[in-house]
Parts: sequence; C-alpha cells; structure tokens
Amino acid sequence: MKLIKFYFALFVLCVTSIFMTTQKKTKILFFGDSITEAGVGPQGFITKIGQKLKNQHADANYELTGAGIGGNKVYDLYLRMSEDVLSKKPDVVVIWVGVNDVWHKTSSGTGTDADKFQRFYEAIIKKFQAENIKVYLVTPAAIGERTDNSNQQDGDLNLYSKIIRKLAVDFNCGLIDLRKEFIQYDLQNNPENKESGILTTDRVHLNEKGNDFVAQKMMEALMPANK
Amino acid sequence: MKLIKFYFALFVLCVTSIFMTTQKKTKILFFGDSITEAGVGPQGFITKIGQKLKNQHADANYELTGAGIGGNKVYDLYLRMSEDVLSKKPDVVVIWVGVNDVWHKTSSGTGTDADKFQRFYEAIIKKFQAENIKVYLVTPAAIGERTDNSNQQDGDLNLYSKIIRKLAVDFNCGLIDLRKEFIQYDLQNNPENKESGILTTDRVHLNEKGNDFVAQKMMEALMPANK
Amino acid sequence: MKLIKFYFALFVLCVTSIFMTTQKKTKILFFGDSITEAGVGPQGFITKIGQKLKNQHADANYELTGAGIGGNKVYDLYLRMSEDVLSKKPDVVVIWVGVNDVWHKTSSGTGTDADKFQRFYEAIIKKFQAENIKVYLVTPAAIGERTDNSNQQDGDLNLYSKIIRKLAVDFNCGLIDLRKEFIQYDLQNNPENKESGILTTDRVHLNEKGNDFVAQKMMEALMPANK
Amino acid sequence: MKLIKFYFALFVLCVTSIFMTTQKKTKILFFGDSITEAGVGPQGFITKIGQKLKNQHADANYELTGAGIGGNKVYDLYLRMSEDVLSKKPDVVVIWVGVNDVWHKTSSGTGTDADKFQRFYEAIIKKFQAENIKVYLVTPAAIGERTDNSNQQDGDLNLYSKIIRKLAVDFNCGLIDLRKEFIQYDLQNNPENKESGILTTDRVHLNEKGNDFVAQKMMEALMPANK
Repeated sequence: MKLIKFYFALFVLCVTSIFMTTQKKTKILFFGDSITEAGVGPQGFITKIGQKLKNQHADANYELTGAGIGGNKVYDLYLRMSEDVLSKKPDVVVIWVGVNDVWHKTSSGTGTDADKFQRFYEAIIKKFQAENIKVYLVTPAAIGERTDNSNQQDGDLNLYSKIIRKLAVDFNCGLIDLRKEFIQYDLQNNPENKESGILTTDRVHLNEKGNDFVAQKMMEALMPANK
Repeated sequence: MKLIKFYFALFVLCVTSIFMTTQKKTKILFFGDSITEAGVGPQGFITKIGQKLKNQHADANYELTGAGIGGNKVYDLYLRMSEDVLSKKPDVVVIWVGVNDVWHKTSSGTGTDADKFQRFYEAIIKKFQAENIKVYLVTPAAIGERTDNSNQQDGDLNLYSKIIRKLAVDFNCGLIDLRKEFIQYDLQNNPENKESGILTTDRVHLNEKGNDFVAQKMMEALMPANK
Repeated sequence: MKLIKFYFALFVLCVTSIFMTTQKKTKILFFGDSITEAGVGPQGFITKIGQKLKNQHADANYELTGAGIGGNKVYDLYLRMSEDVLSKKPDVVVIWVGVNDVWHKTSSGTGTDADKFQRFYEAIIKKFQAENIKVYLVTPAAIGERTDNSNQQDGDLNLYSKIIRKLAVDFNCGLIDLRKEFIQYDLQNNPENKESGILTTDRVHLNEKGNDFVAQKMMEALMPANK
Repeated sequence: MKLIKFYFALFVLCVTSIFMTTQKKTKILFFGDSITEAGVGPQGFITKIGQKLKNQHADANYELTGAGIGGNKVYDLYLRMSEDVLSKKPDVVVIWVGVNDVWHKTSSGTGTDADKFQRFYEAIIKKFQAENIKVYLVTPAAIGERTDNSNQQDGDLNLYSKIIRKLAVDFNCGLIDLRKEFIQYDLQNNPENKESGILTTDRVHLNEKGNDFVAQKMMEALMPANK
C-alpha cells in the first residue's frame, strides 16, 4: 500500500515536472515607435509589466519582448515586420503606432496620409494573423495633454484612432484604446490644462506615472485576470 | 388754422428730411479671407445682412463693405489694413481670419505659428482701436464639419479660437464665436458625421444655409435688436 | 525536284512558325506613379515605345505593361510589388518613383524622408533581383523646368536622384537618368526659363514632346540597338 | 616765434576737436534673424566689422547696431520695423532675411509663400526709403553647404535670392549677394561636398570663418574702400 502511495506520488511529480518544463510561455512582442523603444528601459511600461507579473508569480507564463524603434511610422513597421516580429515567432503582438504618422506632417513634412495609414496597418494585421498571431491594436495616446481639444494634432489623432478602432473590429483584434484612456485620465487629473507633465514628459513620451498607467491598461487587456 | 397745419406739416417734413440726410450711416467693414470675399456675392452673408436690414427698413442706418481676399492670413490683413480699412474710415470692423493660418501648414507649408498669429492680430486690433473703430473678432468656423473632433485641423482651430477669445477679452472687442456656433449647430444637424454639406460646401466655404446662419449670428452681435 | 522545293519550303515554314510561337517575349513592366500611369495612355511614353518597336518590326520581341498609380511614393510600390509586379512574372522592371516623395513634403506634409526613401527602394530592388528580374532605376525628372536651379524642389530632387544613382551602382541595376537628361534638354530648349511647357504640361507630367523624349531615352537603355 | 608755433598748435587742436565732435557717425543697422542676432556676439560678423574698422582707425566714422531676432521671417521684420529700426534713425539698414521663410516650410509648416515674401520685403524697403535710409539687401546664404545643388532647400533659396536681387534693382538698393558668394566659396573650399563646417556650423549659422567671410563681404559693400 505504501508502495502504491509512493508510486502515485512519483507519478504526480513526474507529470507535474513534465508539464512545467514543456509548458510554453506566452511570447508577447511589443511592436512600435520610440514610446515602445523606451518601454524596455528601467522605468518603461514593458519592464513594469514584467515586474507586476513577477509580483503575481505569473512571470513564468510570459515572455515579453520590445521591438520599438524611434521615429517609426506604420510603413516602417511593415518594412521590418518579417525580420523583427515574424522571425521571433511571438504568440501575441501589440502594435502601437501612429504618433509619428501624424506629428511628422508638420515637424518634417513626412507624415502618413490617412488612407495609406489604414492600408499599411491592414497589411500588417493580415500578415500576423496568417501566422496565427493574436494581434492587439493600440491607439496613439497623445501629442499634448490639454483637455479642451486644443492640442495641435488632436483632430488628426482622433481620426487615426478611429481608423484603428475600426480595424480592430473588422479584423477581430484586441484593442487597447489608450487615446480614449489618456483623454479620460487627463480630464480628471489635469485641471490646469497643461500641455504635458500628467502622463507624459514632453506631450508624447511617458513619464513614470504614464508608464504605470500604460502597464496597467495593457495588463487588463493582455492578462484579463488583471482587469 | 389750415395754414398753421400746413406749416407744421412742412416743418415736420423738413426736419425729417434734414435728419435723414444728415444722419450718419454706421459703416461696417468686413475684413478677412476668401470666406469674406464670397460674402459679397449674390448669396453671400454680407449681401444677406443687407437684405435683412432692408426687410427691417433699417438699411438706411448701415453701410456694409466687404474687404476679403482669398488665401489671406493674419499677417496679410496687417499688411493691407491701412489701404483697405483705415482709408475707408469705417465705424466698425469685423475681423474674420484664421482658417488659412492653420490650413496652409499642411497644404503648402506656409501656415502661421500660434504666437505670431496672436502678435499680428493684436497689432491690428491696436491700430483700429487707435482710430476709434469698434472691433469685432470672429473665430475660424471650420475646416471640416465632423462632430467627433476628428477633422484634421480641429485641435489647431480650437487653439487659434482660444487665442482670439482671449484677445477679445483683453482688448474689449466684440466677439462672434462662429467656431463655437458651428460646432453646436453641426452637433444637432450632422447626425451622419459628414465632412461637409451642413453649413459648408467644401469643409470651409459657406453653402447657402451657412451664409444664412452666419448672417444671422453676425446681426445678433452687430445689431443687437436682432438677438 | 519541285517536290523537294515544296518540302523544303514546308520545313522552313514549320521551323519559323515553331520558332515564332516558342520564342519568349521579353516582358517589361513599368512600375511607378501617375507619370507611369499616364504612360499607357494614347500619347503615353509606353504606348510610344510600343509604336516605335512596331515600326522596327521588333514588337514581337517585347511585351510592355504599365503598373503606375497616381500619388505613389516608394513605400506604396513596396506595398503592392507582390500583387502588381511579381505575380506578373516580368523579365525586366523599370522603377520610376520619387516625385511624390519630395513634392508631398509641402503639398500635404506627407513626403518621404531621404533615409527611408533609400531603405524602401533597396528592399524593392532586392526582392526583384531575388526573382531574377533585371531592374532599371529611373531618376525623378522634374518638378519645374526652370534651368537656373530655382524650382522649389530642385535641391531635394537632386538629393533623391543621387540616392538612386548610388543604388544603381551598388545593386548593379540599369540606370535611366531622366533627371540629368531633362536638365540638359531644358538648358538647351528653355531659353525663357519657363516653369513648364518644354517637356511637361504642369512642371511634372509629360507633354507630347516629353513622352517622345522619355520613350527615346528608355529605348536607348532597354533596347540598346536604339542607342 | 615760439608763440607763433604755440598758437598754430592751439589752432590745429581746436579745429581737430571741432571736427571730431561735429562729424556725424554713419549709423548702420543690421536687421535680420538669428544669424544677425549672433552677429553682435564676441565672434560675430558685426563685432568683427567693428574691429576691422578700429584697425583702420575708421571706427569713429561708424556706429554699428544689430537688430536680429531668432526665427524671424520677412513679415516679422515688417511688424517690428518701426520700433526696432525707424525709432533708431539709422542712415543705413542692411536687411538679411529669408532662411526661415524657406526652412520653416518643412520644419514647422510655417514658411512664407514666395509672392508674399516679395510683397512684405517691398513694403519694408519702401518704408525705409521714405525715411531717406540707404538700404542694402542680403541674399540668404545657405541651408546646407553641399556644392552639387543637393541641399534640400537649394531650389527655394535660389528662388528667394532671385526675388531679392530683382528688388535691389527695382528699388535701387545696395546688394550683398551672400548666396552667390557662399556657393562660390564652397565650390572652391568644400571638395568633400560636406553639409556644413566650411562657413557654417550647422548648415545655416556662421562658424568663425563664416563670420570673417561675411564681415569682409559686407565691408566691401558698405565701406567701398575695403573692396
């Protein structure tokens, strides 16, 4: 009888260990511009997601990778998606792009037309889904944090966010609507109607509060237990 | 007795006619861009104000002049204000400018920076007030009529409108806030969220309804009995 | 004897017909923007090349296809190269792009940065060469025909043309240097320093003389017997 | 005899001192953008002109004033000409503007259209000449020092320089054609076709050699004995 118990315990142990070693981590890749590039820094939102997962003893389940490059627009993502995403065989890709497509229109005359923004974005989604990657789309959060719709690019950011929201519906992607979240947060936390300093350092890039906020919103979407 | 009545009637007639011929008409000059230029057309808002005044038998009290030139920005108004405004010795000037200052940023790379927009606008107001001209400021109504803040230039138009509203307060000018009026009207009358066709033909220039609407709003401000 | 002659003639006829039906035509595909799109019109340069080949009784050797779309920039070509070029299995591709990459910087704020222009161009060349396609590069001919380097985009067009010339060397491509050819032609044929009307209708698109000129220059490169 | 010598010396002294106190210095005012603003710095071209005049013992004849403000375009000069120039009652004004009018087209979408550049420039000249000020026009020297016409703004700079040269002829102004001088100098001294470092630090602003060069060219025009 003891022997039976022993063998049973041994069996359970084996199964568990096999299961643990063979259990595949979910590979999440963050694909974007300078905001995502900074996300893997010591205070970046990707680093913060990793820390929170550790605190929840869930870090064994996920592998997080950043693939952000400063100045990238949607067509830059398209150009490097094979090398920087598909070759890494992720399970999940979080696409966060759009700020430069809008911003560069006036800062260097090299932004992206709305129709072409949509076309390239769609081509990326199709390519990822063809590889059975789960795709999450993120709307461009902010170029300026004023809450009365008087940031220069507000109209355009809203337009490009609408395009992204529609793509999420049409292609059955996850949506992390940071544009909406930032506007809501700023409405409640920016009573002086400042241009930056609430969630961003410089109207665009995340300060520490911003990185926390984004990490939280992304976990709610990517790891729904955090909702 | 009949003679007395006759002389009295004659006297009244004389006084009236003297009064009518000597009474100074209020000279109102509309100073702006292509929208104002079109305002003197057969269906234009300035023409419509004239017709409404006629219907009210008040046309003898006002002289309306258009001084709009297509493509004008605030500094163009500054350059031609002596020749096109001061030389005409108006009592009232209605300044309506701003669409091109914002729009040309992306359509030709030649818009106007916000700080310089303010500086030139202020210089124009000061010059007019130094000549005892009553000045009304008009906010730039629209570049696109979508009601969800997704017209490309919405943020910038809101910013430049804020500048104009503040100038109106600081310099004690009249304000005709067409930006606000158009947004309100479109919210109620553009359920399909169209880009144009409600008050404009092409997102910027007024259609017939737009000309009526602007004529009405201007009369409420300029001839308060119409409020 | 007559029979022998007859059989010989029959033999010749057979061989010829076999040769004619089996001989593979060289498939040349023209890949570009609105200038190439207009190239297949009744007076377009591609149509003209076809006519000249016919006059030389060489039309059986070539199949000419236009794949130009108005407004295209280098990254638009990259996006549609599989569908519009590779699927057609051409032997030769003539890439003519660059005018919109430069022009749209000021006309809509959506031009292409020089470094990205190079990167996308290079990616297209590599893809085509991997399919054993012979690639010809064409420099952007003109945005304005003034001969004293005072067309607004002259500096940028020269820069992008230099990038293309270097790519042609680095990747061993054919080069049709229309930028250089247009400048030379205009220097000799535009004594009044006009903006358009020599080889273009509107500073960019080809007039009849321009289509003739381009057809001639392309044939000299693509069908060297025409040199 | 000694007395005669004494009286003669006294006479000479008196005449000299009278001459020195009554001689009016020529007031030269330099009116422009950041390049002119830097001109009054320790190594600036205006400072250098002062030093050279001192070395020639001619500094008593001239008073040099800088009135440059960073970011200024032609219409900014027009706005501040009364306060910053006319109120100082100069004898000579050197106008050097144009780089920002061209550059800001792509760097912020707020450059100046060519036709308006000309109109404002003309208005400034007329105003100064009406006050009997001798006016010198300076062409915009460079945005980039490459010698093969491949600096992005070369075409536009050449166009605006042509406008200035024509204004100099039409209004009988002095011309200091730095655009032409810089191109010539760079052709001889920039064999590596570098973007900057020959006469500029950053493609636009003058390095020490550039300040020397500009000081020299300005003196040749303003104080012809230096030719």
